[in-house]
Amino acid sequence: MKKELGGKNCLYPMPVALVGANVNGKPSYIKIDHVGIMDFSHICLSMGKTHHTNEGIRDNGTFTVNIPSTRLVKETDYRGLVSERKSDKGALFNAFYGKLETAPMILECPLNMECRLVNTVDMPNHDIFIGEIVESYCDEEYLVEGLVDFSRVNPIVFAM
Amino acid sequence: MKKELGGKNCLYPMPVALVGANVNGKPSYIKIDHVGIMDFSHICLSMGKTHHTNEGIRDNGTFTVNIPSTRLVKETDYRGLVSERKSDKGALFNAFYGKLETAPMILECPLNMECRLVNTVDMPNHDIFIGEIVESYCDEEYLVEGLVDFSRVNPIVFAM
Repeated sequence: MKKELGGKNCLYPMPVALVGANVNGKPSYIKIDHVGIMDFSHICLSMGKTHHTNEGIRDNGTFTVNIPSTRLVKETDYRGLVSERKSDKGALFNAFYGKLETAPMILECPLNMECRLVNTVDMPNHDIFIGEIVESYCDEEYLVEGLVDFSRVNPIVFAM
Repeated sequence: MKKELGGKNCLYPMPVALVGANVNGKPSYIKIDHVGIMDFSHICLSMGKTHHTNEGIRDNGTFTVNIPSTRLVKETDYRGLVSERKSDKGALFNAFYGKLETAPMILECPLNMECRLVNTVDMPNHDIFIGEIVESYCDEEYLVEGLVDFSRVNPIVFAM
């Protein structure tokens, strides 16, 4: 028997992402659960409009998507709970930079995607940032014959 | 040690979805792996331009997203392998209709989202369909205190 739930998103599980951007020249990260794949080289992020990191994405036109492993669940959770404005969020992680130079990536995350902002969609409560992935990075220990082994990465997944 | 992979999407795992639309008045379904959440009531689908189902989405301005459980892995896989043009894909499943009347949902899937097409983004090889979820349906056996229990649904997930 089917029950109506209202117009509710049930598209889960989703991979948890730590989104990075430089804000005033310093790395800022925020945990988000609502993401999407547009095609093989484009990604979209759904970010509440009030986040500090959004400003950095707009200012630099760059951002990163970092995939934490379950080993980083405590640090990841903290990045979702404590306002970026109130703490030096970047300091929890070591940052590295790639081709775009302004988009900080998290060294401790097994997978990192470096993106150029190509479009922003204005939703009532969210900014949808669409990025072109210019480079992806993976620690060697998670690769098998050059391909990412997601069972080794062991990403955190989210369901509402 | 970080290794560069090229600008590759590594945003996995993603929930596997069976997208439904009426094509010439008959249900057509296609399995897709690249989806996204825009906000609590909006969803996006990345669909190769050649799919038969895309025509139905455009014609009716409606579509559905059906979440198969791992019990349906064989039928789901078939919907991804065999061209919709060559087989009567709809016949594998029993269809039901909701508020929008033109968007077929799969009775056998634990979760169904009925969507109104609100925007289409044209990517080089993909149509990105953005839908507003007007109603969601779940079989009672997967609900706990009115909320979807995803461990009971046991959705199929995909990693490239």
